[in-house]
Amino acid sequence: MNKASLGEKFSLIHEHWRPKVVAALNGQEMKLVKVAGTFPWHRHDSEDELFLVWRGRMTLEFRDHSVTLGAGEFCVAPRGVEHRTTADAEAEVLVFEPAQTRNTGNVVDATYTAPNGVVI
Amino acid sequence: MNKASLGEKFSLIHEHWRPKVVAALNGQEMKLVKVAGTFPWHRHDSEDELFLVWRGRMTLEFRDHSVTLGAGEFCVAPRGVEHRTTADAEAEVLVFEPAQTRNTGNVVDATYTAPNGVVI
Repeated sequence: MNKASLGEKFSLIHEHWRPKVVAALNGQEMKLVKVAGTFPWHRHDSEDELFLVWRGRMTLEFRDHSVTLGAGEFCVAPRGVEHRTTADAEAEVLVFEPAQTRNTGNVVDATYTAPNGVVI
Repeated sequence: MNKASLGEKFSLIHEHWRPKVVAALNGQEMKLVKVAGTFPWHRHDSEDELFLVWRGRMTLEFRDHSVTLGAGEFCVAPRGVEHRTTADAEAEVLVFEPAQTRNTGNVVDATYTAPNGVVI
């Protein structure tokens, strides 16, 4: 029941595409991730994912359309729907999803699949 | 799979203490609420609640300590733990919690208990 700061938590992250857990509740986690570049296409068969941009700009691509999110903008990638994220420059993003969701979903990628449950 | 903006959604809210649903996922909801003044003491027996301040300042009081949250700061009120929220001036707050969580938890209050599931 202590408070935490998004700015301070983001300042502890020094890598891209590796989500860090900052809160756990109701079987869900709030994760912070810094993104830059292009992530692999993937889907989550059983998990919806909410992306909320805190700083910068990120595009959430679906197979049939794309959504570009600036600071304070959010979008849900529904379960079962292929998506990928891209960012021309580093962006800071909140992700809200079930605990233990694999960041690359149905894909295992040597570079992009990140360890789960890393708390900062 | 459309984006939304916190700023635009908050601009649609013209009352205090009545959460509005802006995203639903995995049985949870992201709600936005404008707060000002002091909310009743209550607890949620089965739901953890995450509070994240978007604009302004809010205090989350527990029976044994208080946590004052500024913009970009967050805190979880765990299930079963009594709490109330206070704000000297209007603050804009994101709440993550299970869908259909009653805002006043175990309390029914003629003034503060808000209808659930109001989407904006």
